[in-house]
Amino acid sequence: MTIQTIDTNNIAKGIGPNVSPEVFTNDKRKVFLFGSPSYTNIGDQAIAYSIEKFIKSRFPYYEYIEIMDYATDEGIEFVKGIIREDDIVMFTGGGNLGSLYLDIEEDRRKVFAAFRDYKSISMPQSVFFEDNEHGEQEKKKTQEAYHQNKKLTIAARESQTLDVVRDTFDTEVIYTPDMVMSLDVVPREQEREGVMFFLRADKEKVMEEDFVSELMEWTKKFGSVDRTDTVLDEDVVPTIDYADRERHFIEMLDLIGSKKLIITDRLHTMIFSIITKTPCLVFGNSYGKAKHSYRDWLDSINFVEYTDSKDVELLEQMVEKLMKAEPNEVDLRKDFKPLVDFFRS
Amino acid sequence: MTIQTIDTNNIAKGIGPNVSPEVFTNDKRKVFLFGSPSYTNIGDQAIAYSIEKFIKSRFPYYEYIEIMDYATDEGIEFVKGIIREDDIVMFTGGGNLGSLYLDIEEDRRKVFAAFRDYKSISMPQSVFFEDNEHGEQEKKKTQEAYHQNKKLTIAARESQTLDVVRDTFDTEVIYTPDMVMSLDVVPREQEREGVMFFLRADKEKVMEEDFVSELMEWTKKFGSVDRTDTVLDEDVVPTIDYADRERHFIEMLDLIGSKKLIITDRLHTMIFSIITKTPCLVFGNSYGKAKHSYRDWLDSINFVEYTDSKDVELLEQMVEKLMKAEPNEVDLRKDFKPLVDFFRS
Repeated sequence: MTIQTIDTNNIAKGIGPNVSPEVFTNDKRKVFLFGSPSYTNIGDQAIAYSIEKFIKSRFPYYEYIEIMDYATDEGIEFVKGIIREDDIVMFTGGGNLGSLYLDIEEDRRKVFAAFRDYKSISMPQSVFFEDNEHGEQEKKKTQEAYHQNKKLTIAARESQTLDVVRDTFDTEVIYTPDMVMSLDVVPREQEREGVMFFLRADKEKVMEEDFVSELMEWTKKFGSVDRTDTVLDEDVVPTIDYADRERHFIEMLDLIGSKKLIITDRLHTMIFSIITKTPCLVFGNSYGKAKHSYRDWLDSINFVEYTDSKDVELLEQMVEKLMKAEPNEVDLRKDFKPLVDFFRS
Repeated sequence: MTIQTIDTNNIAKGIGPNVSPEVFTNDKRKVFLFGSPSYTNIGDQAIAYSIEKFIKSRFPYYEYIEIMDYATDEGIEFVKGIIREDDIVMFTGGGNLGSLYLDIEEDRRKVFAAFRDYKSISMPQSVFFEDNEHGEQEKKKTQEAYHQNKKLTIAARESQTLDVVRDTFDTEVIYTPDMVMSLDVVPREQEREGVMFFLRADKEKVMEEDFVSELMEWTKKFGSVDRTDTVLDEDVVPTIDYADRERHFIEMLDLIGSKKLIITDRLHTMIFSIITKTPCLVFGNSYGKAKHSYRDWLDSINFVEYTDSKDVELLEQMVEKLMKAEPNEVDLRKDFKPLVDFFRS
């Protein structure tokens, strides 16, 4: 072990926002989380929040250190200077491994290639490379980068992704639910009023606006009907740094838990509805993220339903059923065992 | 709501060691833990550690504030100045509600009487008043103090204590396991060697030294045999403050998890053995603390056994069985639901 000298006044913003500088050189085993999101997708914020809780509650003898997404390059150089043989490199989970979110994918390639000699993991992800020339090119770049790392594990959060990872990568692969399902958070008790639509406005969107209008019209019988998204408007909230993550996550839980009914095409709106026991009707995105998580892990939940139907009469019956159900529970804790075993060894 | 001004330079040591002073006046709902131990009983330290994890993982929207045991009087005055209608007052759990540990019992009386108008809880405890004049007198003092509080709940951690609480107090009562069983901590993987005895040297001790010597003699066949206690020697470690709690707790888990066999008369040595999946033979204390926790909650664990036997041949057979078992798991999470419901409402 070499003795490290760290100039604590000269550490770039975004490196270890969750720790005080003296931990960089203590003798605890370290777990580095790269790609910690600063963007306003509360689903991805909730994933990073859950990763922190997961490591800290189960492995309190590890030092958990985050590197924000905007500090990836400086973070790689910094961590290279302090990392030791036993330490672990993580890249955050989500639905962005593939060809759709290249800024994040490029960071992930850099991290896994830079730490090729260290135990590394891509935390639970959905993987999607477009089925066209662009997608194929990006897949090759990703393979090239990841395959430099001989100690890489990729965690898939749906069976569909598990198949893709096995076909695409020559790495270890494990299968667990989305990290947010590992949280213990107990929602606040609230009065419920009205209906909220949480709908995508991004490249994964498949719901037609006419259909959305029709749905909004008939849900008026349940009270006020509003529309928003779990990605906050960047004109209002430009970025979310580590220190504000918990507050934004809880505000989103409070919002969803204050509604009688949620209608969404987002995976994490569905998961937040499950946490807050809020009836929720879920539609698809472009490549089946919410659909497969629902079918693989959450099918037994009686107050949430996934559907591809556009038949408003049928949907009406579904919603009535969801709203009448006495909310049940699903315990996915045992399903995180492969991840516990990864960090334990 | 009145606007509070707090002189942050003038807060007594031991008040809020886990928070920065600005939280005293923020608008979050607050949960105060009184009686946070500074003494070297690692069982009681682990309880306070578990309470913190329990509140923070399940209720991240609450502000959790500890008051160390040595700061009880100043803490009561301080909290009176900042507490609001919805806030919650806790006194830590353990095995000290009753006539055996009067310094702690007197603090608990003061706290529940001082916050008589606030939702209050005695965290999971074993209750024991001695069956003599002294015990009766102390019971009366405790009843008098607690009954001033009209919003008090007492959590009992064994069925025996549940009966005592119902017979003794005119308060709400709930029934849950010891708080340490609510932890998610995953023990380190370690080589195991030898046998460790963890034995009381206090007023609850009932094991005879001759018998202990006999046990120590025949366990030598499993390797080195040592004797210690989960209460650290105060000549070596005089006190454990909030900042050092986690480290001491993990060191104790590491010690227990490095042994092939544990023999103890302490409840928390048993619980630490369960967490680390270490075969453990458990004997009784003066009033059945470990015995009843084992029978009420932990009976199904195949690598831990409670016994009152002094028959070394029988004990030898028991130990062989414990050491051969493929350690199983017991999930007591659902049994903390009454406590979750208490904090939720």
